[in-house]
Amino acid sequence: MNRKPLILVCNDDGITAPGIRTLISVMNEIGDVVVVAPDNPQSGMGHAITVNTTLRCNPITVDEGPQLEYSCSGTPADCVKMAVNEILNKRPDICVSGINHGSNASLNVIYSGTMSAAVEAGIEGIPAIGFSLLDYNWDANFDACKEYVKTITENVLQQGLPEGVVLNVNIPDLKKEEIKGIKVCRQAHGNWKEEFEKRVSPQGEDYYWLTGQFVNLDKGEDTDMWALENGYVSLVPVQFDMTAHHYIKNLNTWNL
Amino acid sequence: MNRKPLILVCNDDGITAPGIRTLISVMNEIGDVVVVAPDNPQSGMGHAITVNTTLRCNPITVDEGPQLEYSCSGTPADCVKMAVNEILNKRPDICVSGINHGSNASLNVIYSGTMSAAVEAGIEGIPAIGFSLLDYNWDANFDACKEYVKTITENVLQQGLPEGVVLNVNIPDLKKEEIKGIKVCRQAHGNWKEEFEKRVSPQGEDYYWLTGQFVNLDKGEDTDMWALENGYVSLVPVQFDMTAHHYIKNLNTWNL
Repeated sequence: MNRKPLILVCNDDGITAPGIRTLISVMNEIGDVVVVAPDNPQSGMGHAITVNTTLRCNPITVDEGPQLEYSCSGTPADCVKMAVNEILNKRPDICVSGINHGSNASLNVIYSGTMSAAVEAGIEGIPAIGFSLLDYNWDANFDACKEYVKTITENVLQQGLPEGVVLNVNIPDLKKEEIKGIKVCRQAHGNWKEEFEKRVSPQGEDYYWLTGQFVNLDKGEDTDMWALENGYVSLVPVQFDMTAHHYIKNLNTWNL
Repeated sequence: MNRKPLILVCNDDGITAPGIRTLISVMNEIGDVVVVAPDNPQSGMGHAITVNTTLRCNPITVDEGPQLEYSCSGTPADCVKMAVNEILNKRPDICVSGINHGSNASLNVIYSGTMSAAVEAGIEGIPAIGFSLLDYNWDANFDACKEYVKTITENVLQQGLPEGVVLNVNIPDLKKEEIKGIKVCRQAHGNWKEEFEKRVSPQGEDYYWLTGQFVNLDKGEDTDMWALENGYVSLVPVQFDMTAHHYIKNLNTWNL
Protein backbone atom coordinates (compact mmCIF):
# COMPACT_ATOMS: atom_id res chain seq x y z
CA MET A 1 0.00 0.00 0.00
CA ASN A 2 1.35 3.36 -0.99
CA ARG A 3 0.44 5.34 2.12
CA LYS A 4 0.34 9.11 1.72
CA PRO A 5 2.78 10.90 4.02
CA LEU A 6 1.42 12.85 6.98
CA ILE A 7 2.70 16.43 6.71
CA LEU A 8 2.73 18.95 9.56
CA VAL A 9 2.72 22.57 8.37
CA CYS A 10 3.70 25.53 10.55
CA ASN A 11 5.03 29.08 10.12
CA ASP A 12 5.77 32.27 12.03
CA ASP A 13 3.87 34.89 10.04
CA GLY A 14 0.52 33.53 11.24
CA ILE A 15 -1.97 31.03 9.85
CA THR A 16 -3.55 33.49 7.38
CA ALA A 17 -0.28 34.60 5.75
CA PRO A 18 -0.04 34.08 1.97
CA GLY A 19 3.26 32.24 2.45
CA ILE A 20 1.73 29.40 4.50
CA ARG A 21 -1.29 29.25 2.15
CA THR A 22 1.11 28.58 -0.74
CA LEU A 23 2.97 25.97 1.31
CA ILE A 24 -0.31 24.21 2.16
CA SER A 25 -1.36 24.12 -1.50
CA VAL A 26 1.93 22.45 -2.50
CA MET A 27 1.77 19.98 0.41
CA ASN A 28 -1.80 18.98 -0.52
CA GLU A 29 -0.28 17.57 -3.75
CA ILE A 30 2.15 15.41 -1.73
CA GLY A 31 0.29 14.06 1.30
CA ASP A 32 -2.21 14.45 4.10
CA VAL A 33 -1.80 17.90 5.60
CA VAL A 34 -2.34 19.10 9.15
CA VAL A 35 -1.63 22.77 9.84
CA VAL A 36 -0.87 24.05 13.35
CA ALA A 37 0.18 27.66 13.12
CA PRO A 38 0.21 30.82 15.23
CA ASP A 39 -2.94 32.95 15.37
CA ASN A 40 -0.79 36.10 15.08
CA PRO A 41 2.59 37.08 13.62
CA GLN A 42 5.58 35.63 15.49
CA SER A 43 8.49 37.00 13.47
CA GLY A 44 11.75 37.32 15.35
CA MET A 45 10.53 34.98 18.09
CA GLY A 46 13.61 32.78 17.84
CA HIS A 47 13.19 29.56 19.76
CA ALA A 48 10.78 31.06 22.30
CA ILE A 49 8.33 28.78 24.11
CA THR A 50 5.39 29.70 26.31
CA VAL A 51 6.10 28.75 29.90
CA ASN A 52 4.58 31.57 31.94
CA THR A 53 1.13 31.75 30.42
CA THR A 54 -1.56 29.52 28.94
CA LEU A 55 -2.01 28.37 25.36
CA ARG A 56 -5.11 28.03 23.23
CA CYS A 57 -5.40 25.86 20.15
CA ASN A 58 -8.59 25.53 18.12
CA PRO A 59 -9.72 24.11 14.78
CA ILE A 60 -10.17 26.76 12.11
CA THR A 61 -11.10 26.92 8.43
CA VAL A 62 -9.07 29.51 6.56
CA ASP A 63 -9.64 28.42 2.99
CA GLU A 64 -10.92 25.47 0.97
CA GLY A 65 -8.95 22.25 0.75
CA PRO A 66 -8.46 18.80 2.27
CA GLN A 67 -6.10 20.05 5.01
CA LEU A 68 -7.01 20.13 8.71
CA GLU A 69 -6.08 23.40 10.39
CA TYR A 70 -5.54 24.55 13.97
CA SER A 71 -4.85 28.07 15.12
CA CYS A 72 -2.63 28.33 18.20
CA SER A 73 -1.99 31.27 20.52
CA GLY A 74 1.67 30.38 21.04
CA THR A 75 5.02 30.62 19.31
CA PRO A 76 6.09 28.50 16.31
CA ALA A 77 7.94 26.11 18.66
CA ASP A 78 4.78 25.84 20.81
CA CYS A 79 2.75 24.97 17.69
CA VAL A 80 5.01 22.01 16.90
CA LYS A 81 4.96 20.76 20.49
CA MET A 82 1.17 21.12 20.53
CA ALA A 83 0.78 19.31 17.21
CA VAL A 84 2.99 16.39 18.20
CA ASN A 85 1.71 15.97 21.75
CA GLU A 86 -1.98 16.95 21.57
CA ILE A 87 -3.37 17.15 18.04
CA LEU A 88 -1.84 14.38 15.93
CA ASN A 89 -2.47 10.79 16.91
CA LYS A 90 0.58 9.59 14.98
CA ARG A 91 3.97 11.07 14.22
CA PRO A 92 4.13 13.20 11.07
CA ASP A 93 6.46 11.97 8.34
CA ILE A 94 7.75 15.51 7.83
CA CYS A 95 7.32 19.04 9.15
CA VAL A 96 7.52 22.01 6.81
CA SER A 97 7.56 25.60 8.05
CA GLY A 98 6.95 28.82 6.10
CA ILE A 99 6.99 29.99 3.46
CA ASN A 100 8.42 32.90 5.41
CA HIS A 101 7.92 36.42 4.13
CA GLY A 102 11.58 37.49 4.22
CA SER A 103 15.07 36.01 4.44
CA ASN A 104 16.21 33.51 7.06
CA ALA A 105 19.67 33.17 5.56
CA SER A 106 22.94 33.54 7.47
CA LEU A 107 22.60 34.53 11.14
CA ASN A 108 18.85 35.09 10.74
CA VAL A 109 18.42 31.38 11.42
CA ILE A 110 18.94 32.21 15.09
CA TYR A 111 16.19 34.85 15.28
CA SER A 112 13.77 33.03 13.02
CA GLY A 113 10.43 31.72 14.22
CA THR A 114 10.08 29.81 10.94
CA MET A 115 13.30 27.93 11.59
CA SER A 116 12.47 27.40 15.27
CA ALA A 117 9.43 25.37 14.21
CA ALA A 118 11.64 23.26 11.95
CA VAL A 119 14.27 22.88 14.68
CA GLU A 120 11.61 21.91 17.25
CA ALA A 121 10.36 19.20 14.87
CA GLY A 122 13.97 18.06 14.40
CA ILE A 123 14.34 17.81 18.18
CA GLU A 124 11.27 15.55 18.17
CA GLY A 125 12.99 13.36 15.58
CA ILE A 126 10.82 14.51 12.65
CA PRO A 127 12.53 15.42 9.33
CA ALA A 128 11.96 19.15 8.93
CA ILE A 129 12.46 22.02 6.51
CA GLY A 130 12.04 25.78 6.85
CA PHE A 131 11.28 27.71 3.65
CA SER A 132 11.70 31.46 3.17
CA LEU A 133 11.26 33.85 0.26
CA LEU A 134 13.42 36.98 0.13
CA ASP A 135 10.44 39.32 0.00
CA TYR A 136 9.07 40.83 3.21
CA ASN A 137 5.83 42.04 1.64
CA TRP A 138 2.51 40.48 2.60
CA ASP A 139 1.57 40.33 -1.11
CA ALA A 140 4.86 38.72 -2.14
CA ASN A 141 4.67 36.47 -5.19
CA PHE A 142 5.30 32.86 -4.12
CA ASP A 143 4.80 31.30 -7.58
CA ALA A 144 8.47 30.66 -8.27
CA CYS A 145 8.85 28.95 -4.87
CA LYS A 146 6.44 26.12 -5.55
CA GLU A 147 8.65 23.92 -7.69
CA TYR A 148 11.59 24.16 -5.26
CA VAL A 149 9.42 23.57 -2.21
CA LYS A 150 8.02 20.43 -3.83
CA THR A 151 11.38 19.07 -5.03
CA ILE A 152 13.12 19.53 -1.70
CA THR A 153 10.19 18.15 0.33
CA GLU A 154 9.96 15.05 -1.88
CA ASN A 155 13.71 14.52 -1.57
CA VAL A 156 13.54 14.68 2.22
CA LEU A 157 10.59 12.27 2.28
CA GLN A 158 12.60 9.88 0.13
CA GLN A 159 16.08 10.23 1.68
CA GLY A 160 15.22 11.20 5.26
CA LEU A 161 17.52 13.35 7.35
CA PRO A 162 20.01 12.24 9.99
CA GLU A 163 19.25 12.81 13.67
CA GLY A 164 19.94 16.37 14.70
CA VAL A 165 19.81 17.92 11.20
CA VAL A 166 17.06 20.05 9.63
CA LEU A 167 17.11 22.13 6.44
CA ASN A 168 17.02 25.90 5.98
CA VAL A 169 15.88 26.82 2.46
CA ASN A 170 15.90 30.40 1.18
CA ILE A 171 14.53 31.38 -2.21
CA PRO A 172 15.64 34.52 -4.05
CA ASP A 173 13.03 37.08 -5.04
CA LEU A 174 13.33 36.36 -8.76
CA LYS A 175 11.14 35.16 -11.58
CA LYS A 176 11.02 31.39 -12.12
CA GLU A 177 13.17 31.56 -15.27
CA GLU A 178 15.80 33.68 -13.50
CA ILE A 179 16.47 31.15 -10.71
CA LYS A 180 19.54 29.07 -11.53
CA GLY A 181 18.81 26.05 -9.31
CA ILE A 182 19.52 24.84 -5.77
CA LYS A 183 22.89 25.22 -4.03
CA VAL A 184 23.90 23.37 -0.85
CA CYS A 185 25.61 25.95 1.38
CA ARG A 186 26.90 26.81 4.80
CA GLN A 187 25.50 29.67 6.91
CA ALA A 188 27.29 32.91 5.94
CA HIS A 189 29.07 34.82 8.67
CA GLY A 190 27.23 38.11 9.02
CA ASN A 191 25.22 40.14 11.48
CA TRP A 192 22.82 43.02 11.96
CA LYS A 193 24.04 46.56 12.46
CA GLU A 194 21.23 47.82 14.64
CA GLU A 195 19.91 51.32 14.79
CA PHE A 196 17.42 52.17 17.48
CA GLU A 197 15.09 54.89 16.34
CA LYS A 198 14.24 56.95 19.41
CA ARG A 199 10.83 58.63 19.57
CA VAL A 200 8.82 60.47 22.21
CA SER A 201 5.31 59.34 23.11
CA PRO A 202 2.39 61.83 23.37
CA GLN A 203 2.91 61.44 27.14
CA GLY A 204 6.50 62.70 26.78
CA GLU A 205 8.21 59.35 27.36
CA ASP A 206 11.08 57.99 25.27
CA TYR A 207 10.59 54.78 23.33
CA TYR A 208 12.50 52.94 20.62
CA TRP A 209 11.96 51.04 17.39
CA LEU A 210 14.57 48.42 16.56
CA THR A 211 15.77 48.85 12.99
CA GLY A 212 18.97 47.89 11.24
CA GLN A 213 20.74 46.54 8.24
CA PHE A 214 22.16 43.09 7.68
CA VAL A 215 25.85 43.02 6.87
CA ASN A 216 27.42 40.02 5.16
CA LEU A 217 30.97 39.72 6.51
CA ASP A 218 31.70 36.51 4.58
CA LYS A 219 33.54 36.47 1.25
CA GLY A 220 33.06 32.70 0.78
CA GLU A 221 31.32 31.42 -2.35
CA ASP A 222 29.99 28.39 -0.47
CA THR A 223 27.59 30.44 1.67
CA ASP A 224 23.84 30.97 1.55
CA MET A 225 24.31 34.71 1.07
CA TRP A 226 26.51 34.15 -2.00
CA ALA A 227 24.03 31.64 -3.46
CA LEU A 228 21.08 34.00 -3.02
CA GLU A 229 22.96 37.01 -4.41
CA ASN A 230 23.84 34.91 -7.45
CA GLY A 231 20.35 33.68 -8.25
CA TYR A 232 20.34 30.29 -6.52
CA VAL A 233 18.00 28.77 -3.96
CA SER A 234 20.16 28.19 -0.84
CA LEU A 235 19.93 24.94 1.13
CA VAL A 236 21.75 24.87 4.48
CA PRO A 237 21.77 21.84 6.81
CA VAL A 238 21.18 23.15 10.34
CA GLN A 239 22.07 21.45 13.62
CA PHE A 240 21.04 22.21 17.19
CA ASP A 241 24.07 20.83 18.96
CA MET A 242 25.49 24.27 19.69
CA THR A 243 28.71 22.97 21.27
CA ALA A 244 31.81 24.65 19.85
CA HIS A 245 33.61 21.29 19.77
CA HIS A 246 36.77 22.81 18.30
CA TYR A 247 37.30 24.94 21.40
CA ILE A 248 37.00 22.24 24.08
CA LYS A 249 40.69 21.30 23.92
CA ASN A 250 41.74 24.92 24.39
CA LEU A 251 39.40 25.44 27.35
CA ASN A 252 40.92 22.42 29.04
CA THR A 253 44.24 24.31 29.24
CA TRP A 254 42.65 27.14 31.27
CA ASN A 255 43.44 27.52 34.94
CA LEU A 256 39.97 26.75 36.29
CA MET B 1 47.40 52.18 33.77
CA ASN B 2 45.42 49.25 35.07
CA ARG B 3 42.00 50.12 33.65
CA LYS B 4 39.04 48.37 35.25
CA PRO B 5 37.08 46.27 32.76
CA LEU B 6 33.65 47.46 31.65
CA ILE B 7 31.15 44.68 32.38
CA LEU B 8 27.67 44.44 30.86
CA VAL B 9 25.24 42.40 32.98
CA CYS B 10 21.97 40.95 31.69
CA ASN B 11 19.60 38.09 32.53
CA ASP B 12 16.20 36.64 31.62
CA ASP B 13 14.50 36.38 35.02
CA GLY B 14 14.13 40.16 35.23
CA ILE B 15 16.23 42.92 36.80
CA THR B 16 14.98 42.33 40.35
CA ALA B 17 15.73 38.57 40.42
CA PRO B 18 18.07 37.40 43.21
CA GLY B 19 20.25 35.66 40.60
CA ILE B 20 21.20 38.87 38.82
CA ARG B 21 21.65 40.70 42.12
CA THR B 22 24.26 38.07 43.09
CA LEU B 23 25.93 38.38 39.68
CA ILE B 24 26.12 42.18 40.03
CA SER B 25 27.69 41.91 43.49
CA VAL B 26 30.43 39.63 42.16
CA MET B 27 31.03 41.81 39.09
CA ASN B 28 31.37 44.94 41.26
CA GLU B 29 34.51 43.27 42.70
CA ILE B 30 35.98 42.90 39.19
CA GLY B 31 35.11 46.01 37.18
CA ASP B 32 32.76 48.83 36.27
CA VAL B 33 29.28 47.39 35.95
CA VAL B 34 26.38 48.43 33.72
CA VAL B 35 23.19 46.40 34.01
CA VAL B 36 20.63 46.31 31.19
CA ALA B 37 18.01 43.71 32.02
CA PRO B 38 14.36 42.94 31.30
CA ASP B 39 11.68 44.63 33.40
CA ASN B 40 9.79 41.32 33.57
CA PRO B 41 10.58 37.59 33.43
CA GLN B 42 11.68 36.37 29.98
CA SER B 43 12.30 32.69 30.64
CA GLY B 44 12.00 30.45 27.63
CA MET B 45 12.26 33.40 25.26
CA GLY B 46 15.03 31.75 23.23
CA HIS B 47 16.65 34.20 20.86
CA ALA B 48 13.52 36.32 20.46
CA ILE B 49 13.88 39.98 19.46
CA THR B 50 11.26 42.71 19.41
CA VAL B 51 10.48 43.72 15.85
CA ASN B 52 6.73 44.34 15.84
CA THR B 53 6.42 46.64 18.82
CA THR B 54 8.28 49.40 20.62
CA LEU B 55 10.85 49.16 23.37
CA ARG B 56 11.35 51.20 26.50
CA CYS B 57 14.57 51.44 28.45
CA ASN B 58 15.00 53.58 31.55
CA PRO B 59 17.52 54.09 34.38
CA ILE B 60 16.50 52.40 37.61
CA THR B 61 17.91 51.91 41.09
CA VAL B 62 17.21 48.46 42.46
CA ASP B 63 19.72 48.29 45.29
CA GLU B 64 22.81 50.04 46.61
CA GLY B 65 26.11 49.78 44.76
CA PRO B 66 28.36 51.44 42.20
CA GLN B 67 26.64 49.80 39.21
CA LEU B 68 24.52 51.71 36.70
CA GLU B 69 21.22 49.98 35.93
CA TYR B 70 18.65 50.16 33.14
CA SER B 71 15.34 48.35 32.99
CA CYS B 72 14.23 47.39 29.48
CA SER B 73 10.81 46.26 28.23
CA GLY B 74 12.29 43.79 25.70
CA THR B 75 13.82 40.34 25.57
CA PRO B 76 17.33 39.46 26.79
CA ALA B 77 18.67 39.78 23.22
CA ASP B 78 16.99 43.21 22.94
CA CYS B 79 18.70 44.28 26.18
CA VAL B 80 22.14 43.50 24.78
CA LYS B 81 21.41 45.27 21.48
CA MET B 82 20.07 48.27 23.41
CA ALA B 83 23.11 48.34 25.72
CA VAL B 84 25.64 48.16 22.91
CA ASN B 85 23.91 50.56 20.52
CA GLU B 86 22.21 53.10 22.79
CA ILE B 87 23.38 53.03 26.39
CA LEU B 88 27.11 52.35 26.47
CA ASN B 89 29.46 54.82 24.84
CA LYS B 90 32.22 52.23 24.52
CA ARG B 91 32.26 48.48 23.95
CA PRO B 92 32.08 46.38 27.11
CA ASP B 93 35.06 44.11 27.79
CA ILE B 94 32.73 41.27 28.71
CA CYS B 95 29.03 40.45 28.98
CA VAL B 96 27.75 38.17 31.74
CA SER B 97 24.18 36.90 31.86
CA GLY B 98 22.30 35.32 34.75
CA ILE B 99 22.62 33.91 37.25
CA ASN B 100 19.63 32.02 35.89
CA HIS B 101 17.20 30.42 38.30
CA GLY B 102 17.24 26.92 36.78
CA SER B 103 19.30 24.77 34.43
CA ASN B 104 20.39 25.80 30.95
CA ALA B 105 22.33 22.60 30.37
CA SER B 106 21.95 20.35 27.34
CA LEU B 107 19.25 21.35 24.83
CA ASN B 108 17.99 24.07 27.18
CA VAL B 109 20.63 26.35 25.66
CA ILE B 110 18.28 26.71 22.68
CA TYR B 111 15.25 27.85 24.72
CA SER B 112 17.23 29.97 27.15
CA GLY B 113 16.84 33.72 27.39
CA THR B 114 19.93 33.83 29.62
CA MET B 115 22.04 32.23 26.93
CA SER B 116 20.47 34.33 24.16
CA ALA B 117 21.85 37.45 25.86
CA ALA B 118 25.30 35.84 25.95
CA VAL B 119 24.99 34.71 22.31
CA GLU B 120 23.83 38.17 21.22
CA ALA B 121 26.90 39.68 22.89
CA GLY B 122 29.05 37.07 21.14
CA ILE B 123 27.50 38.09 17.81
CA GLU B 124 28.56 41.65 18.60
CA GLY B 125 32.10 40.39 19.17
CA ILE B 126 32.00 40.73 22.96
CA PRO B 127 33.33 37.84 25.10
CA ALA B 128 30.29 36.48 26.92
CA ILE B 129 29.21 33.98 29.55
CA GLY B 130 25.80 32.73 30.68
CA PHE B 131 25.56 31.45 34.26
CA SER B 132 22.80 29.24 35.65
CA LEU B 133 22.10 27.57 39.00
CA LEU B 134 20.14 24.32 39.03
CA ASP B 135 17.48 25.69 41.35
CA TYR B 136 14.29 27.18 39.88
CA ASN B 137 13.20 28.80 43.13
CA TRP B 138 13.13 32.58 43.50
CA ASP B 139 14.81 32.22 46.92
CA ALA B 140 17.52 29.87 45.62
CA ASN B 141 20.84 30.09 47.47
CA PHE B 142 23.47 31.55 45.14
CA ASP B 143 26.32 31.57 47.71
CA ALA B 144 28.19 28.59 46.26
CA CYS B 145 28.05 30.15 42.76
CA LYS B 146 30.07 33.23 43.60
CA GLU B 147 33.53 31.71 43.55
CA TYR B 148 32.95 29.94 40.20
CA VAL B 149 31.36 32.99 38.60
CA LYS B 150 34.40 35.05 39.63
CA THR B 151 37.01 32.51 38.51
CA ILE B 152 35.46 31.93 35.09
CA THR B 153 34.83 35.64 34.44
CA GLU B 154 38.43 36.52 35.36
CA ASN B 155 39.72 33.76 33.09
CA VAL B 156 37.69 35.05 30.16
CA LEU B 157 38.87 38.61 30.79
CA GLN B 158 42.45 37.33 30.78
CA GLN B 159 42.32 34.80 27.94
CA GLY B 160 39.56 36.23 25.76
CA LEU B 161 37.34 33.99 23.63
CA PRO B 162 37.65 33.28 19.91
CA GLU B 163 35.17 34.84 17.48
CA GLY B 164 31.88 32.97 17.44
CA VAL B 165 32.27 31.25 20.82
CA VAL B 166 30.53 32.06 24.13
CA LEU B 167 30.38 30.05 27.36
CA ASN B 168 27.46 28.26 28.99
CA VAL B 169 28.11 27.65 32.70
CA ASN B 170 25.76 25.60 34.87
CA ILE B 171 26.25 25.18 38.59
CA PRO B 172 24.83 22.24 40.54
CA ASP B 173 22.48 22.93 43.45
CA LEU B 174 24.97 21.82 46.09
CA LYS B 175 26.77 23.27 49.06
CA LYS B 176 30.14 24.90 48.37
CA GLU B 177 32.08 22.04 49.90
CA GLU B 178 30.17 19.46 47.88
CA ILE B 179 31.09 20.94 44.47
CA LYS B 180 34.05 19.08 42.99
CA GLY B 181 35.27 21.77 40.57
CA ILE B 182 34.75 22.87 36.96
CA LYS B 183 34.48 20.47 34.01
CA VAL B 184 34.73 21.50 30.36
CA CYS B 185 31.95 19.63 28.53
CA ARG B 186 29.90 19.25 25.40
CA GLN B 187 26.11 19.79 25.30
CA ALA B 188 24.39 16.52 26.23
CA HIS B 189 21.93 15.05 23.77
CA GLY B 190 18.54 15.18 25.44
CA ASN B 191 15.12 16.73 25.08
CA TRP B 192 11.85 17.57 26.77
CA LYS B 193 9.00 15.11 26.91
CA GLU B 194 6.13 17.57 26.93
CA GLU B 195 2.81 17.13 28.59
CA PHE B 196 0.11 19.67 27.88
CA GLU B 197 -2.20 20.01 30.82
CA LYS B 198 -5.63 20.75 29.41
CA ARG B 199 -8.03 22.86 31.48
CA VAL B 200 -11.35 24.54 30.93
CA SER B 201 -11.82 28.26 31.55
CA PRO B 202 -14.77 29.65 33.55
CA GLN B 203 -16.16 30.59 30.11
CA GLY B 204 -16.08 26.94 29.05
CA GLU B 205 -13.12 27.21 26.66
CA ASP B 206 -10.22 24.77 26.53
CA TYR B 207 -6.74 26.02 27.31
CA TYR B 208 -3.36 24.40 28.00
CA TRP B 209 -0.35 24.68 30.26
CA LEU B 210 2.93 23.44 28.81
CA THR B 211 4.64 21.11 31.27
CA GLY B 212 7.13 18.33 30.80
CA GLN B 213 10.19 16.49 31.93
CA PHE B 214 13.72 16.71 30.60
CA VAL B 215 15.15 13.41 29.43
CA ASN B 216 18.90 12.93 29.09
CA LEU B 217 19.44 10.55 26.16
CA ASP B 218 23.23 10.79 26.34
CA LYS B 219 25.39 8.21 28.13
CA GLY B 220 28.61 10.17 27.54
CA GLU B 221 30.76 11.18 30.51
CA ASP B 222 31.99 14.27 28.67
CA THR B 223 28.60 16.03 28.76
CA ASP B 224 27.23 18.87 30.85
CA MET B 225 24.47 16.60 32.22
CA TRP B 226 27.04 14.06 33.45
CA ALA B 227 29.16 16.78 35.05
CA LEU B 228 26.19 18.30 36.89
CA GLU B 229 24.89 14.93 38.06
CA ASN B 230 28.35 14.16 39.41
CA GLY B 231 28.83 17.35 41.38
CA TYR B 232 30.79 19.47 38.90
CA VAL B 233 30.19 22.94 37.48
CA SER B 234 29.73 22.41 33.71
CA LEU B 235 31.40 24.71 31.19
CA VAL B 236 30.30 24.32 27.56
CA PRO B 237 31.69 26.43 24.71
CA VAL B 238 28.71 27.44 22.53
CA GLN B 239 28.76 28.54 18.89
CA PHE B 240 26.10 30.19 16.75
CA ASP B 241 27.19 28.89 13.39
CA MET B 242 24.35 26.37 13.21
CA THR B 243 25.52 24.79 9.93
CA ALA B 244 25.65 20.98 10.11
CA HIS B 245 28.97 21.01 8.21
CA HIS B 246 29.26 17.21 8.36
CA TYR B 247 26.12 16.81 6.26
CA ILE B 248 26.96 19.14 3.37
CA LYS B 249 28.79 16.45 1.39
CA ASN B 250 25.84 14.08 1.66
CA LEU B 251 23.33 16.74 0.57
CA ASN B 252 25.43 17.38 -2.52
CA THR B 253 24.64 13.84 -3.69
CA TRP B 254 20.88 14.52 -3.66
CA ASN B 255 18.97 14.86 -6.91
CA LEU B 256 18.02 18.53 -6.53
